[in-house]
Amino acid sequence: MLDICLLGCGGMMPLPYRRLTAMMARYNGHNILIDCGEGTQVAIKEKGWSFKSIDLICFTHYHADHISGLPGLLLTIGNAERTEPLTMAGPRGLERVVNALRVIAPELPFPIEFIEWNGPEQQIGRRGYRIEAFRVNHNVPCYGYNLIIDRAGKFDVEKARENQIPMKYWNSLQKGEVISLEDRTLTAEMVLGKPRKGLKVSYTTDTRPTESIVEHVRGADLFICEGMYGEPEKLAKAKEYRHMTFYEAARIGKEADVRQMWLTHYSPSLTKADLYMDGVRAIFPRVVPGKDLKSITLEFEEDE
Amino acid sequence: MLDICLLGCGGMMPLPYRRLTAMMARYNGHNILIDCGEGTQVAIKEKGWSFKSIDLICFTHYHADHISGLPGLLLTIGNAERTEPLTMAGPRGLERVVNALRVIAPELPFPIEFIEWNGPEQQIGRRGYRIEAFRVNHNVPCYGYNLIIDRAGKFDVEKARENQIPMKYWNSLQKGEVISLEDRTLTAEMVLGKPRKGLKVSYTTDTRPTESIVEHVRGADLFICEGMYGEPEKLAKAKEYRHMTFYEAARIGKEADVRQMWLTHYSPSLTKADLYMDGVRAIFPRVVPGKDLKSITLEFEEDE
Repeated sequence: MLDICLLGCGGMMPLPYRRLTAMMARYNGHNILIDCGEGTQVAIKEKGWSFKSIDLICFTHYHADHISGLPGLLLTIGNAERTEPLTMAGPRGLERVVNALRVIAPELPFPIEFIEWNGPEQQIGRRGYRIEAFRVNHNVPCYGYNLIIDRAGKFDVEKARENQIPMKYWNSLQKGEVISLEDRTLTAEMVLGKPRKGLKVSYTTDTRPTESIVEHVRGADLFICEGMYGEPEKLAKAKEYRHMTFYEAARIGKEADVRQMWLTHYSPSLTKADLYMDGVRAIFPRVVPGKDLKSITLEFEEDE
Repeated sequence: MLDICLLGCGGMMPLPYRRLTAMMARYNGHNILIDCGEGTQVAIKEKGWSFKSIDLICFTHYHADHISGLPGLLLTIGNAERTEPLTMAGPRGLERVVNALRVIAPELPFPIEFIEWNGPEQQIGRRGYRIEAFRVNHNVPCYGYNLIIDRAGKFDVEKARENQIPMKYWNSLQKGEVISLEDRTLTAEMVLGKPRKGLKVSYTTDTRPTESIVEHVRGADLFICEGMYGEPEKLAKAKEYRHMTFYEAARIGKEADVRQMWLTHYSPSLTKADLYMDGVRAIFPRVVPGKDLKSITLEFEEDE
C-alpha cells in the first residue's frame, strides 16, 4: 500500500489558495518527499503525515519554488526529534545549495547525507522504495523521478521442490534472504514465481516534453506532471521558459500509457485548471487536474 | 494615515491556521516590512498590499521563522517589476545571511542596500518614516522597532511675522525647506508652532522583558509584542528560551502606557490565545490577542 499526496499544485510562487508543487509518498512507515517549496511543511502538517519519518528528500532542481521551504522543514523535522540520518538527492550542486540555505538552520539533531545525480539516469534503493532519477529538459539541470515498489513473485512450492530446497529455508528465502550452503547458494528466485507487477509513481516538473520522459514514465500507476499553462496560446511562453502546456503533458501521458495522470505546477496566472480539461481529455482521458492535498492510496493488484 | 497589518501571529513554525509573525506598514505609498518568515509573502498577497512598494525590510533577528521567507519574497518583488533599490536592516550578520539565502534568488532586478545595527539603539529615516531600532534580550542579537511618523507643528502666521519671514517663503518653509539668504538662514521652525503628536508603532518579538523596551515603546499608538505562552506555568520555559508570557508582555504595555497592544508570536502549542485574555486584561486592559491579518489604520489626532 503506497500513499501519495500532492502537497501543492502551484508553480513560481505560493498563493493564498494554492501551495507550491511538491509530492510526498508513504510506504511501510517511511516517507519520501519530492521538492520542498515555501509552505510545503504546512501542507504536510495539514495532511497530518509524519515529519519524523521523512527518510529521503529528492529535488527536481534548485529554483526557489522547489526548495525555498527546506530550512524550515529541516527545523521542523528536528523538532519532531528525528535523530536518524536523512538523505537528500538532487542534481549537481545539492550540497552547496543546502549548506547555504542552512545558514538559518545550522543545528539539527540528525545527520544529512547527500546524493548528487550524474548523467541521464541513476537509481537508488531506500526502505523498500526504488527511486529512479532521469534527466529532463529545463533551463537548469533538472530531474524527473520514478518511485517504484517492486513486488516479488508468489511462493511456488513446485519450484522449491524442483530446486530441492529444504523446507526449513523456504520462509527465509521468500523474505529475500540469501543462504549459503556448503555446496551451493540459495536465493529467492529458487522458490518464487516470476516478479509480480509492483507500483510505480512518476513525477516530472519544470521541463519541456522529451522522449526520455515518455520512456521513463511508461505504464506508471500515477503520473504527476507539470502543466504550467492551460491556455493553448501560451505554447510559445511554455517553450521560452522550458515548461509545458496541459496539452503537451497529456500527450506524454497518452504515449506512455500511464494509468492515471495529475497535472500540477500551474502558473500563478492560471486561476481555474478545470476550464481547460475538455481539450486535455480529448487528447488523453485519464488526466485530471491536480489540487492541493490531492491524495491516493495505490494497492498491489489482486493475485489471479 | 498609517496602515498597519500584522501578517501572522505564530512563532517557531508556520501552521495551517497560523502564519509566522511579521508586520507591514503602509504610508504615503511606501511599505515597510518587519520580519519575513515562510509564508509571509502569501499573507501580503492575501492582504492585497503592494510588493513593488516595499522599500525597507527590517529584521529583528535571523532565526528561521523570521527570515525563511525572504528568498521567495525577493523573487516576488522582482516579478512585481521593482527596479528601485530596496533597503534591508537588521543586526550584525545581515549581509552574510541574506547573501547565503540568495543562493536560490541570485538574480533580482533591483539593488539591495544593507544597514547593520550596532549598539543599543540606532535610527534611520526613510520615505517619511523614522525607524528606531533598539536592542532587546534574546539568545541571539535581536532588535525591536519603532516606526514613527513625525508631524510638524501648524503654520503660525504670527510667528512668521515676528520672525520677519517674507511671505514668499512661507510655503516652502512649511514644507520643510531650508532657505539661505544673504544675512540669515530660514528654517521651518521659524514659521511653525511646536511639533504635533505624530504616530508611533512599536514591534518587539523574541525577547525577555527589559526596562529598555518599556522606555522605547512608551506612549506608542500601537504596540505589537510577543507573547509566546499564555499558560502562566510556562514562565520557566519563557525564561529558558528568552521569550515572554502574555502577562509579562501586558506588564510592559502597562508600564509604557501604550494606547493599544496586540500580542503575537504564539507558541505552536498554544491553540487559543483568547483563553488567557481575562488574566492578561486584569493586568492591562488595552491588550488584545493578535490574529493573522489583523489590521488598523492610524490617523493623526484632530487639531484642537
